[in-house]
Amino acid sequence: MAANISSLEEQVFEFAAFMKNVDMFPVFFTAHVSLACLVVREDSKDLGTKFRQNHPFTLWLCTVIASVSGVFLANFLFGDPLVDILKENKLIAFITILWYLINYCPFDVVYKVVALRPVFLTAAILQECLRLRFIYLGVQQAAKLYPTGYVIIIIGGVIKGNGYGFVKIVERLIRGKWIPTTNDLLDITYFAKSSLYASVLFLLQHMEVLAVPVELLYLGIVVAFVTLRLIIVLGGVRDPLLPIELPICTL
Amino acid sequence: MAANISSLEEQVFEFAAFMKNVDMFPVFFTAHVSLACLVVREDSKDLGTKFRQNHPFTLWLCTVIASVSGVFLANFLFGDPLVDILKENKLIAFITILWYLINYCPFDVVYKVVALRPVFLTAAILQECLRLRFIYLGVQQAAKLYPTGYVIIIIGGVIKGNGYGFVKIVERLIRGKWIPTTNDLLDITYFAKSSLYASVLFLLQHMEVLAVPVELLYLGIVVAFVTLRLIIVLGGVRDPLLPIELPICTL
Amino acid sequence: MAANISSLEEQVFEFAAFMKNVDMFPVFFTAHVSLACLVVREDSKDLGTKFRQNHPFTLWLCTVIASVSGVFLANFLFGDPLVDILKENKLIAFITILWYLINYCPFDVVYKVVALRPVFLTAAILQECLRLRFIYLGVQQAAKLYPTGYVIIIIGGVIKGNGYGFVKIVERLIRGKWIPTTNDLLDITYFAKSSLYASVLFLLQHMEVLAVPVELLYLGIVVAFVTLRLIIVLGGVRDPLLPIELPICTL
Repeated sequence: MAANISSLEEQVFEFAAFMKNVDMFPVFFTAHVSLACLVVREDSKDLGTKFRQNHPFTLWLCTVIASVSGVFLANFLFGDPLVDILKENKLIAFITILWYLINYCPFDVVYKVVALRPVFLTAAILQECLRLRFIYLGVQQAAKLYPTGYVIIIIGGVIKGNGYGFVKIVERLIRGKWIPTTNDLLDITYFAKSSLYASVLFLLQHMEVLAVPVELLYLGIVVAFVTLRLIIVLGGVRDPLLPIELPICTL
Repeated sequence: MAANISSLEEQVFEFAAFMKNVDMFPVFFTAHVSLACLVVREDSKDLGTKFRQNHPFTLWLCTVIASVSGVFLANFLFGDPLVDILKENKLIAFITILWYLINYCPFDVVYKVVALRPVFLTAAILQECLRLRFIYLGVQQAAKLYPTGYVIIIIGGVIKGNGYGFVKIVERLIRGKWIPTTNDLLDITYFAKSSLYASVLFLLQHMEVLAVPVELLYLGIVVAFVTLRLIIVLGGVRDPLLPIELPICTL
Repeated sequence: MAANISSLEEQVFEFAAFMKNVDMFPVFFTAHVSLACLVVREDSKDLGTKFRQNHPFTLWLCTVIASVSGVFLANFLFGDPLVDILKENKLIAFITILWYLINYCPFDVVYKVVALRPVFLTAAILQECLRLRFIYLGVQQAAKLYPTGYVIIIIGGVIKGNGYGFVKIVERLIRGKWIPTTNDLLDITYFAKSSLYASVLFLLQHMEVLAVPVELLYLGIVVAFVTLRLIIVLGGVRDPLLPIELPICTL
């Protein structure tokens, strides 16, 4: 029996380590970039039905920005060259192919497939895994640069987990859409908040306040992220954290 | 008699040296950050009475930006990481405490005290001393990086003395307030102009065109800054430099 | 006869090398900065007739930004200090003199002369030569930093050849003019497109896909740029590349 439990523990640990180290390319990236393509395309609908046909370059640029928004933002805030990420020719080619397929495929087949509920759901779950990896790596990088800059470490995680949310205002402006009355720093979305909580937990673990192996913490947050995303997509809930936060805030 | 005069001279010089080197933390900083809190709070009034309650994080972020706007702007223009200043955990904690007290104190006591005329006046005077120190250090830093870049040296001083003025357009956008028809580069305020004059004087002294000991120059500008600020606050004048500039401009 | 041809070839080659290496200062720069002054002045017309008189500093700043917009943009995207270019005191003085002459000369003589058709045409032709030099150097610089970053190399050229087009949205904002519905990334102008084509050609030559001596390629593009600019100015055509592109796009 004891051997059984230890074996279960070991298996969980192994799975946690796997989640933390599995190569994100290409499966998780495909999901993430496809959803980025979708978001940009849907958000352009109110710019006219001909927008996709008339502005392919703008759409491509915005898709690239949406896909690597976290890196752009990190480069901007941490003083690295903004163009840096564009040196990854493979990544650019990869985004370009997905952009083409989702926006200009004959009979719009690829778009319709990605928009299918089960496909969309799977992509959303995979994206959550990628999002957490981004957050984790963002926290690590910031912690290396500023070992005691706690605010900076948290920022390093949050912008990687909700890059598009913060960059959206500029990305929309490129598409000629200007909505100054709202932004992710004013009306904080679920994605910004969950990135914040994850970053804080990683920071606490990094500071050894939270005495948990990082693999288990990582796995726990992945499970939470995936569950909450499922609630959002399936339940049509905007912010599943709100019912938990409200009673705490009123205290 | 001669001894007396020399002693007076010495005393002035000593006081000037004191003003130029006295630690700005915590007294002068408290004044400066309190006024920054006040400015952000007052400027949010037209965003609805519930803005403070509904957007505490946005208000906090904007208060931080307003407090260290000069550093943000300098980092942006001189190619340093924007997040750099946030590594000062003490400064962030300090701003956070003042932000909390001024915005969310029971019965709004702290806000009412700071808004009291004598308290506000004292804070304004202390802020002018801090502002000049910022300008002086900004000029020094820029001069070290670009010894013959006169325009850059002046910019280095001006952005430190009127940081909030230039950053306001972005800081307001974070609060969902967008006013594109005016900015401090278009409608030049007293604070921008006084920063410019002070920077030019420091530059001339640095270039040894102005053969005055830097301590005396510093003291002279402090006296001018404080006097002009008193005129602004007490007299309700928007720009006390205008009556001096107008006859020169028409020449 | 053979000697004759070789001599003609030699002459072309010599002229091409001359075009690629001739000092751009002061003749070509004068043309470029004068046109920048003109553009900023004309674009400010709808801001009121008194704009020039009431906002000389803003006009000066915008003229400087328009004149060196490519460098600003390159510094921004490649992580160099934005103020860097302002250390060139001679260049700033040069721009300042032209700004003064074109905007505030008695009886507006200089403005009227520059706006004369033959003068304007000559300036436009000279500007095209400068524009290509900027593109060429931009491609070279980017290729040195990112030898295999093809997208970055192209960006490096495009922003140097159409800097003002991309910066315009911010430059206008400084003048209190905000037009979010259009920008050069959304509605791609002739200047952006020609910069793109030139950058791609230089990149192909750099990658040795295009086996042409760089001098000849340079000369060829100069001729194309000047011809197309003549069509624009003389023919009042907005985009002379459109008739060539349309049949290719519909394929």
